[in-house]
Amino acid sequence: MATNLVRKGFDTTVYNRTAAKAEPVVAAGARLASSLREAVEDASVVFLCLPATGDVEAALFGPTGMASGLAAGTVVVDTSTIDPVASRGFAERLAAQDVMMLDAPVSGGQKGAVDGTLTCMVGGPDEALAIARPFLAAIATTIVHIGGHGAGQVAKACNQLCVSANLAGASEAMALAMKMGVDPSRVREALLGGAARSVVLERHVQKLLDRDFRPGFRTALIAKDLSIAAKALNDAGVFAPVSAAVMQVIKALAASGRQDDDWSSVGALVQQLSGVQESDAAQP
Amino acid sequence: MATNLVRKGFDTTVYNRTAAKAEPVVAAGARLASSLREAVEDASVVFLCLPATGDVEAALFGPTGMASGLAAGTVVVDTSTIDPVASRGFAERLAAQDVMMLDAPVSGGQKGAVDGTLTCMVGGPDEALAIARPFLAAIATTIVHIGGHGAGQVAKACNQLCVSANLAGASEAMALAMKMGVDPSRVREALLGGAARSVVLERHVQKLLDRDFRPGFRTALIAKDLSIAAKALNDAGVFAPVSAAVMQVIKALAASGRQDDDWSSVGALVQQLSGVQESDAAQP
Amino acid sequence: MATNLVRKGFDTTVYNRTAAKAEPVVAAGARLASSLREAVEDASVVFLCLPATGDVEAALFGPTGMASGLAAGTVVVDTSTIDPVASRGFAERLAAQDVMMLDAPVSGGQKGAVDGTLTCMVGGPDEALAIARPFLAAIATTIVHIGGHGAGQVAKACNQLCVSANLAGASEAMALAMKMGVDPSRVREALLGGAARSVVLERHVQKLLDRDFRPGFRTALIAKDLSIAAKALNDAGVFAPVSAAVMQVIKALAASGRQDDDWSSVGALVQQLSGVQESDAAQP
Amino acid sequence: MATNLVRKGFDTTVYNRTAAKAEPVVAAGARLASSLREAVEDASVVFLCLPATGDVEAALFGPTGMASGLAAGTVVVDTSTIDPVASRGFAERLAAQDVMMLDAPVSGGQKGAVDGTLTCMVGGPDEALAIARPFLAAIATTIVHIGGHGAGQVAKACNQLCVSANLAGASEAMALAMKMGVDPSRVREALLGGAARSVVLERHVQKLLDRDFRPGFRTALIAKDLSIAAKALNDAGVFAPVSAAVMQVIKALAASGRQDDDWSSVGALVQQLSGVQESDAAQP
Repeated sequence: MATNLVRKGFDTTVYNRTAAKAEPVVAAGARLASSLREAVEDASVVFLCLPATGDVEAALFGPTGMASGLAAGTVVVDTSTIDPVASRGFAERLAAQDVMMLDAPVSGGQKGAVDGTLTCMVGGPDEALAIARPFLAAIATTIVHIGGHGAGQVAKACNQLCVSANLAGASEAMALAMKMGVDPSRVREALLGGAARSVVLERHVQKLLDRDFRPGFRTALIAKDLSIAAKALNDAGVFAPVSAAVMQVIKALAASGRQDDDWSSVGALVQQLSGVQESDAAQP
Repeated sequence: MATNLVRKGFDTTVYNRTAAKAEPVVAAGARLASSLREAVEDASVVFLCLPATGDVEAALFGPTGMASGLAAGTVVVDTSTIDPVASRGFAERLAAQDVMMLDAPVSGGQKGAVDGTLTCMVGGPDEALAIARPFLAAIATTIVHIGGHGAGQVAKACNQLCVSANLAGASEAMALAMKMGVDPSRVREALLGGAARSVVLERHVQKLLDRDFRPGFRTALIAKDLSIAAKALNDAGVFAPVSAAVMQVIKALAASGRQDDDWSSVGALVQQLSGVQESDAAQP
Repeated sequence: MATNLVRKGFDTTVYNRTAAKAEPVVAAGARLASSLREAVEDASVVFLCLPATGDVEAALFGPTGMASGLAAGTVVVDTSTIDPVASRGFAERLAAQDVMMLDAPVSGGQKGAVDGTLTCMVGGPDEALAIARPFLAAIATTIVHIGGHGAGQVAKACNQLCVSANLAGASEAMALAMKMGVDPSRVREALLGGAARSVVLERHVQKLLDRDFRPGFRTALIAKDLSIAAKALNDAGVFAPVSAAVMQVIKALAASGRQDDDWSSVGALVQQLSGVQESDAAQP
Repeated sequence: MATNLVRKGFDTTVYNRTAAKAEPVVAAGARLASSLREAVEDASVVFLCLPATGDVEAALFGPTGMASGLAAGTVVVDTSTIDPVASRGFAERLAAQDVMMLDAPVSGGQKGAVDGTLTCMVGGPDEALAIARPFLAAIATTIVHIGGHGAGQVAKACNQLCVSANLAGASEAMALAMKMGVDPSRVREALLGGAARSVVLERHVQKLLDRDFRPGFRTALIAKDLSIAAKALNDAGVFAPVSAAVMQVIKALAASGRQDDDWSSVGALVQQLSGVQESDAAQP
């Protein structure tokens, strides 16, 4: 994502806790900062991309955090997938020093990030998005302004809930076909022609049937994202038995040595726990 | 479906336990039989369309059932959605008297049935499908031969599992957006642009957000179909926590006076059990 | 159970599809019949103990079934655990020939069967129970008349739902303790002192913590019983998300090579799918 | 609980954010402090009893928190039910200033608190428990030392998971009986005689069958406790499909206007979502 900013001609300064990870961006033409505060000095727009809620909090407000170095009028764009409620809190704390924040989590996978074709779900004020939009356009082809602070994170959580319910449901259906001696590929093809059609059935279930578990999107990442969504569902008191069930299967997947496999391997776990034998796949 | 057979020029005899229901088909040009056995006399292809497994068993093998009246070489096409294992058993019993059976459940809703644009998932021998195909083409635009006996029913069960997981997952996601004060329509639009895209998100979730619960596909029917799928998952020993959770929500929906509403009303039940207030839908 | 009837002095004729299985009862003093019909000839009370609903149906009404040989006034006591709705149907069919039926499933495990200390949950008419009670008393120390036909099966299903929810819930709690580095034995002891006290926590969870998975009660049997309960919940339209989740875990257990282990091994599967390491059990 | 400390002769100073709530304790003989810091001045043992994790954090480390006023060697006993991981963090922060902490959540309900007959599950160092034990003995009849910091909270979470799985499972079983026309009271009685026996079946299910929903233990409280347990299960990566399902039903209960009813009303919600009619309870 940072490399795409450089490529599109934006004057870019980069910082990473692990300096080596910044090297490709520096090679592409970015300046390397030696600290967060140095990185954000004189910046009009600051992008964050971090694994977890606590990392974002630390990067903003920790002992060596950037917040104290941000000038009034700066826009902070947080592309991390984090807790929506915490994200709202960060935005409020920054607003107290006249810094604007956008939560702007992305979807589209590793490939979208490299190609600059991500989808970006944005929460925060219009004014901030107006300033950040040209920069976002360097990394994302679709920018959707969902609503106020946290709305981007909420939309991202909704996205992960939908795709994972789609995949888990389809995985169980494919296991049923196999146990009944019916060719799951034929079932998938038939289903693609009707109301069951989905990107997940088209793309991820194909990976499952091919047993091609190279990521793609790693199990560890969907587990992290669903953990955030589960916390949000819990905090908000949403009755969510299906999402809760999906979450358990993903936890079992992460505990089964599949952390670094593509998350479509959830279907392989379902097959294993269903006692699917290799021979079940073959149509009699 | 029968009317479409008549319209396409097939010589059609019709029978219904409730004679009045056969009237429109007779008006279109079909002969009315006064019994099942009379209806199948001299027929080369026999279509069944019945609510439940027991009804099909009775129509075939009950005291007034048609089986004893079927000539060798006849093809019985069962378009009902029933238990796949029972369906296999019926096929075997008919095979013993040289009658061929196809399980051929359909999807596409009320509209597809009227317009003759259903999708038909077929299980059974090639030879039988070759004979029945011209007739099936009068009612369905897509005919997919899934596999041997019962494979059509398995595919139909898989279809219902997928669409209902898609809808239940999306319903929970929409409830999360609402409880977080985020406009669910904006979330849905954003999600349609990425990996969460599905026919269900496009069509059924729109009905949910419009609170337009005219069927479409009635709750009572998805409840029946999922009950069949649940039995199949259970009998086959498939580990299916997500489908099991979906099934419970649909049972609660059926018990909540929504039997005759469109099944997209499942999202309204999820909202109710999440304590969503009307004002939650409005973005702050 | 049959041996206990002989021991208590009842004139007993025994039949088993696998003759060798009847040998210990014959050794104890029972007559061996060579067919079901021979076995029930002149019998005033007939006991059935069979694995599944279909077996009971076949033994009663199949081609070599006993029903046609039962004299009016006979009481059939079915100690099998089967589908309650089917059981009611069998009772009605027998009633048509003036034969009375009791559904009388038992609990208490292998040990209770050998010792004659089972609990027996009875459905059916008072009159039939009055006739059968002395016989039942030879095999069970507790005989509870639950209600009309099928009520015994319903109570048995309820029993299996309760014990399995108790065990699955406790298994997850124990896994939580382990993953948090807390000694599960200390937790169990503390919990036994309060509202969480149950026979399952006392007995089955102890087996789990001891990793003593000799049956006891085999996984295959609880899987069968829960399958019956799941069908009953499904047919009756009961909203049962917790039982549905329990059922899935038991299915996964059966598919994981634990068929012949004690069903308390469900806790070991939960630990495995939670990534519990041996070292997690040790308190820091 | 504070009143019991006074009654047993301990020199007690009390503080409550809502002064009126402290009045009964003052009436019993306690001193009233006007601030947290004043309350803990010269105290050797400090008891906390607060609703949520954030409240405990604020009381200890907030702007008007007590931590800065605690002398080295003081023992802080936190009887609140809070997040185990957060509790460990608080203990570590206090340890840095040579203050010892015990997490000591209680069970036993309103009645146990008033009577001084609670069960207390303790996490923390032996040394601290030795100092606090006489004080704890004034409020609890059973004091179990589970393990190190946080272990008391883990045990409390395990307790709530077990009791709620027991109650939810039994609620579904009772609904099954009702829908099948079987008297649930007879079923409960039969089950109490065997492996399904539990305190929950004995006590809480009786309240359910009596439809006596006066608390007892309020729905809002079990919802809060299960929310903590759900977070712990999630953070620890425990595969917990049964607990997850239980959690959803409790959320639905809280959203259904049952916040202030006894949590045994969960069985009434299950009945409602199962379409149980009043007449179902009556045995035919």
